[in-house]
Amino acid sequence: MAAAVLHSHRRLLICGLVLAPVLLLASGTAFAQSDPLPSWNEGVAKRSILEFVARMSREGSTEFVKPAERIAVFDNDGTLWCEQPDYIQAVFATDRVRAMAAQHPEWKEKQPFKAVLEGDPKGLAATGEKGIAAIVGVTHAGMTTDQFTASVADWLAMARHPRFKRPYDQLAYQPMLEVLAYLRANGFKTFIVSGGGVEFMRVFAERAYGIPPEQVVGSSGAVKFEIGPDRKPVLIKEPKIEFVDDGAGKVIGINRFIGRRPVFAFGNYDGDHQMLQYTAAGDGARFMGLVHHTDAEREYAYDRQSRVGKLDKALDDATAKGWTVVDIKRDWSTIFPPAK
Amino acid sequence: MAAAVLHSHRRLLICGLVLAPVLLLASGTAFAQSDPLPSWNEGVAKRSILEFVARMSREGSTEFVKPAERIAVFDNDGTLWCEQPDYIQAVFATDRVRAMAAQHPEWKEKQPFKAVLEGDPKGLAATGEKGIAAIVGVTHAGMTTDQFTASVADWLAMARHPRFKRPYDQLAYQPMLEVLAYLRANGFKTFIVSGGGVEFMRVFAERAYGIPPEQVVGSSGAVKFEIGPDRKPVLIKEPKIEFVDDGAGKVIGINRFIGRRPVFAFGNYDGDHQMLQYTAAGDGARFMGLVHHTDAEREYAYDRQSRVGKLDKALDDATAKGWTVVDIKRDWSTIFPPAK
Repeated sequence: MAAAVLHSHRRLLICGLVLAPVLLLASGTAFAQSDPLPSWNEGVAKRSILEFVARMSREGSTEFVKPAERIAVFDNDGTLWCEQPDYIQAVFATDRVRAMAAQHPEWKEKQPFKAVLEGDPKGLAATGEKGIAAIVGVTHAGMTTDQFTASVADWLAMARHPRFKRPYDQLAYQPMLEVLAYLRANGFKTFIVSGGGVEFMRVFAERAYGIPPEQVVGSSGAVKFEIGPDRKPVLIKEPKIEFVDDGAGKVIGINRFIGRRPVFAFGNYDGDHQMLQYTAAGDGARFMGLVHHTDAEREYAYDRQSRVGKLDKALDDATAKGWTVVDIKRDWSTIFPPAK
Repeated sequence: MAAAVLHSHRRLLICGLVLAPVLLLASGTAFAQSDPLPSWNEGVAKRSILEFVARMSREGSTEFVKPAERIAVFDNDGTLWCEQPDYIQAVFATDRVRAMAAQHPEWKEKQPFKAVLEGDPKGLAATGEKGIAAIVGVTHAGMTTDQFTASVADWLAMARHPRFKRPYDQLAYQPMLEVLAYLRANGFKTFIVSGGGVEFMRVFAERAYGIPPEQVVGSSGAVKFEIGPDRKPVLIKEPKIEFVDDGAGKVIGINRFIGRRPVFAFGNYDGDHQMLQYTAAGDGARFMGLVHHTDAEREYAYDRQSRVGKLDKALDDATAKGWTVVDIKRDWSTIFPPAK
């Protein structure tokens, strides 16, 4: 990793020297006012985003892409919002188990619920995939889709991040919000393509990121159509995983939900690798970006050894291929938006 | 059926009397020039579309709906384009079998291919679902998604409708194209929600209807992610149906792909019934429409007994609930756009 970082620092230095005159020319008040990415420090990463968008959007440019084909995809956890110390959807699920425990006295003695109620992460980990499936089964199924949406909305209104003491949907990364807005202002359609549950993310994606439900691609459970007691049709969530939008699944998800190869993709972990490869394999100019979490002081620092958001092979590939690697400590002047 | 038709004619007469003064007031040249639905004859159906859109779009109206929530869904076969004498995707599949037969001499003696090659619809029907699966398997799988797209595009360029002698993608209904454009001009997002194959429809939906790939929901087969011989990732279509977007499946598809309940839905057959019910069950004003094929002279006349596009229960329900039933013979002054 040291070599990779060194390499990327060297590239930064070289580009810095090349770009310095350009930056000086452009450093008046007018430029500062019109900077679409004010939370990004000047450097390779910021420059690569700005230049890519300018090249694609300029009519007559050899790399011009029609607005309809300007598809940009973003991973969610660790790319658009904070995923430490635990995936937010996992926090939701365990919080729900605790809230539901009063109606389930038997959970005190039954795994994986016992481990959740006793705050025993090792015991929970020991229950493995079966344990996770049981928790997903009681927190994400056995109710209508509308009831699930309400339970997520209620939880989001109450829950706070243990370190930052904010509602989770206020832990979107300010620099990434600026990228989303900048892309949309240039005719791009922005999508989430995440391993997270699609119905979970749709509750906050529009408010937090300006991304409407129909542009959220994620993992999903099976649902069943029923005519409810009031003669109105409802969809019941079943305890059965139907699609996992992760790794190669992200490419399958893009094909199924979007039906068009992205020209711009941003991720932060090895589960985004195939999505980035697939984006890179298209004809013409493409942007591939990785957020590298390097700032333990302002956020978290983690990569190759992390349980959550492991970034290893994709980092090597990004470095080898010259994709844009965002070093949070170096590239972001701000992490989160001002508290509301 | 006679009773239903009578009932709907009676409603038309009553509404016609009520609306007559309004129509007279509005019948100047200016109105004619700005009519967004020129291929619709004046009447209940046209009026119900215009009034619904006006009510939803007018700020301050009690039925105002935010643009982000203006989701309109359309079935494809028989609603947006012609589905007679056979589903167009079925024609594609059998044409492909014939084109591939030279490489498969064994098909001459092997069902269901034998029946296709001999033009024997009864023999083909006798092979049942297994026969259809075998045809789908050779025409819709065993190739990359890009190769499939190319095979559909090539076929569309060559094939002609047996009666209208036009390319199939020029058999969109002109009145429905006007509805799509009118909705979009009023901030609606228009989606296809069809039992047809999603990758088949995406080849022509943008060109024929102005509906981009990411707004096409349909049935799909499984795909597999692979790294191709040139080290680039590809998606291989597999001979396995994964999702059938029909009947209750349309509601499941809307939930999965769009994540928002439509306010406007148009179909033409019993497989659209649940989608219309689901749309109707939302809060606030909703539009539910059915295209009833009643014009054997200019197109086709079929409903309760038809093998293709059977319309029976949904027609009864639409009549009972006062949904908009479009009678093609009565309501459409033009069927298809001018030939290109």
